[in-house]
Amino acid sequence: MTTPLMTEVIATKRDGGTLSEAQIRAFIEGYTRGDVPDYQASALVMAIFLNGMEPDEFTTWTDAMLHSGDVLDLSDIPGVKVDKHSTGGVGDKVSLVLAPLVASAGVPVPMISGRGLGHTGGTLDKLESIPGFRTDLSVGRFRELVASLGCGLIGQTAEIAPADRKLYALRDATSTVPCIPLIASSIMSKKLAEGIDALVLDVKTGSGAFMQRLEDSRTLAQTMVRIGEGAGRRVRALITDMDAPLGECIGNALEVVESIEVLHGGGPADLRELTIELGAEMLVLGQVASDLDAARATLAAHLDDGRAAKRFAEIIEAQGGDPRVMDDTSLLPDAPTVAPFVAARSGYVTGFACAEVGRAAMVLGAGRATKEDRIDPGVGLIVHARRGDRVEAGQPLVEIRARDEATRAACVERLAASIHIGDTAPEVPPLVLERLGG
Amino acid sequence: MTTPLMTEVIATKRDGGTLSEAQIRAFIEGYTRGDVPDYQASALVMAIFLNGMEPDEFTTWTDAMLHSGDVLDLSDIPGVKVDKHSTGGVGDKVSLVLAPLVASAGVPVPMISGRGLGHTGGTLDKLESIPGFRTDLSVGRFRELVASLGCGLIGQTAEIAPADRKLYALRDATSTVPCIPLIASSIMSKKLAEGIDALVLDVKTGSGAFMQRLEDSRTLAQTMVRIGEGAGRRVRALITDMDAPLGECIGNALEVVESIEVLHGGGPADLRELTIELGAEMLVLGQVASDLDAARATLAAHLDDGRAAKRFAEIIEAQGGDPRVMDDTSLLPDAPTVAPFVAARSGYVTGFACAEVGRAAMVLGAGRATKEDRIDPGVGLIVHARRGDRVEAGQPLVEIRARDEATRAACVERLAASIHIGDTAPEVPPLVLERLGG
Repeated sequence: MTTPLMTEVIATKRDGGTLSEAQIRAFIEGYTRGDVPDYQASALVMAIFLNGMEPDEFTTWTDAMLHSGDVLDLSDIPGVKVDKHSTGGVGDKVSLVLAPLVASAGVPVPMISGRGLGHTGGTLDKLESIPGFRTDLSVGRFRELVASLGCGLIGQTAEIAPADRKLYALRDATSTVPCIPLIASSIMSKKLAEGIDALVLDVKTGSGAFMQRLEDSRTLAQTMVRIGEGAGRRVRALITDMDAPLGECIGNALEVVESIEVLHGGGPADLRELTIELGAEMLVLGQVASDLDAARATLAAHLDDGRAAKRFAEIIEAQGGDPRVMDDTSLLPDAPTVAPFVAARSGYVTGFACAEVGRAAMVLGAGRATKEDRIDPGVGLIVHARRGDRVEAGQPLVEIRARDEATRAACVERLAASIHIGDTAPEVPPLVLERLGG
Repeated sequence: MTTPLMTEVIATKRDGGTLSEAQIRAFIEGYTRGDVPDYQASALVMAIFLNGMEPDEFTTWTDAMLHSGDVLDLSDIPGVKVDKHSTGGVGDKVSLVLAPLVASAGVPVPMISGRGLGHTGGTLDKLESIPGFRTDLSVGRFRELVASLGCGLIGQTAEIAPADRKLYALRDATSTVPCIPLIASSIMSKKLAEGIDALVLDVKTGSGAFMQRLEDSRTLAQTMVRIGEGAGRRVRALITDMDAPLGECIGNALEVVESIEVLHGGGPADLRELTIELGAEMLVLGQVASDLDAARATLAAHLDDGRAAKRFAEIIEAQGGDPRVMDDTSLLPDAPTVAPFVAARSGYVTGFACAEVGRAAMVLGAGRATKEDRIDPGVGLIVHARRGDRVEAGQPLVEIRARDEATRAACVERLAASIHIGDTAPEVPPLVLERLGG
């Protein structure tokens, strides 16, 4: 077979055609090796952004990215390996509760997570606020943890899907990130390289999500399910509400505290509910529960009787962290100043500009504006106000934990624009809006 | 004014928006300086390819490219300076006749030309087949020739529109060449940098042209006229037939021979006619003729009485060439073998796959497949067959002047597929199909 010319590959997509498997593989392989220059890749990606990809194309595209680097093989570990991926939101600390919880119920969870950027946090940053906790384990050590504890929590390695890392950086610099087939293939190439058998997707929708519109979130979910099934994996996707922060805490150590509360059977109802809903799908996919209701009951029991908390303590210890945080959260970093953000008027909390709430935490130092920024693990927000709450003027809505006055002032400015108070109580949507996949 | 972020410039065009003047200038200036990387430029150019540009955008884009380098100022030379630009075709040697002819009639012609690529030839390559002729004159010497002889014939300098040169190379590598606003701004930025007051455009249409469809040629012509008028220049565009080679000769020295024939009052009728039509527009724009009919009569007289030929001899001599070629074309390079290509059947010549005729000459060495290829000035074709001719099987249709047997064989193969013979005589369209501009 002759190697397809890159100019012809670009012209095919430019003219709205369908890329052949040979064209896609030649591009991804050539780009990973450095034979295809960035300027040809960015022209192709813009043509894909504007002319789309067919299911056969994005399935092949994902497969080529997945095979651009190492693919883990966990088939020697017994059980159906299941991971969860969230498209990201504000206050989304579900992974910290879900991974030990599901592992404690007998489903191996090989979880490879990312860092926070912009208004969304990242699981790795949250875990690293636990003193000593390391996420940069070798693949060998990760495999041992999945085999022994049913769970390892690590970051992306340089060897997994290098094509995706290179392409994502290029898309970031060329305004081609918000493109559903490219987002879906980026996520799925990394997840499929983890050696999982099945996957549960939490596709967020709303003002705090990457996709604000339900139909876009649905298309993204459908695309990812299709890619996963095309690769022979079982995939379930839940489309969930991200018009308000999940739980109350936003900020790295604060989110660990709240996760520990849920692992101890307490914590905010929405965070517990979503964790159980996603976990129930994982237990059914993992073939340790016959149906979702049985799975929910198992998971609730594991949260309430301490089994999930015990498993998280073991994981923390195995990854170098201090497991005493499970019983003494004062061991976690904190912030020197605590101040309230109060309601400017009386009325009902009608909703949030949720991404802006995330950025209010980011300006405190809880998140990154650019990849190079450093996280301050102790700072953050505790958002007491919930949609539908009746509040009075002057009532504290948010507790701000700041490093200094300047960042607190910047945070207050953003909060003022992002918590809406009106005269009538809003309708609050359900947490799980839709379920997809087989 | 803050500098527009390139990611925002790209996103604007990606979403089908209109680029502001500040955005366009920031891009062109930044790209010329090297501050904007190729991968951002190619993403933007693909978005332009797919989402188009409005008149205000391509006018500003052209102006920014034109000002990316030197802009000649010929205002100290008396008269209205007028140039002609052709979008390129097969056998199009009009410039060689037109420039001295129009100059001899009193209109200064500062002509900056290009080289051939693919199936089309280039004026510089043809001129350089004249022994000694140099096209790499300094700008100062060029200016002297325009002042003294009314005409200089040179190539693009590195200082003129460097943004265009950089962007054209990028478009070539990213399949974004065939985009009308980008083609128009590429041509016009170079022409407007020449210091001209008015311009006549020969926009070719048909199987030997860059644009095969009349409507595309018309859009290109309208776009260039709009850009030129936006820059305060008078512009006329003729859309002319390129479904058959212009004249009989294709190949560099052969085209010089044919040009000299026309300058001596002879030569093929179509070449003489098109030269006079384009020249008449130049004389009217140059304010030395009151209307097209008066201009045509002047030009015909200058061809028939030797004034145009004399002027070309003077230009050849001034540019280092041997003016004796005007009377003795055996001084030009030629090819060692001459062989006929004969009709495979009897019938009427119904038409040409005209670009393929150009490539038949290219494989002899008369043209370049890539920019790095060297031209063989002596080789080429003399196409005796004209549309509508009655021919008999075995009758010579083309005279092939080749360097060797291998290239001749490759040429014959292409000719066989590119001269169509049928049972009924075709309708032959007029040479000038449309006229645009004021």
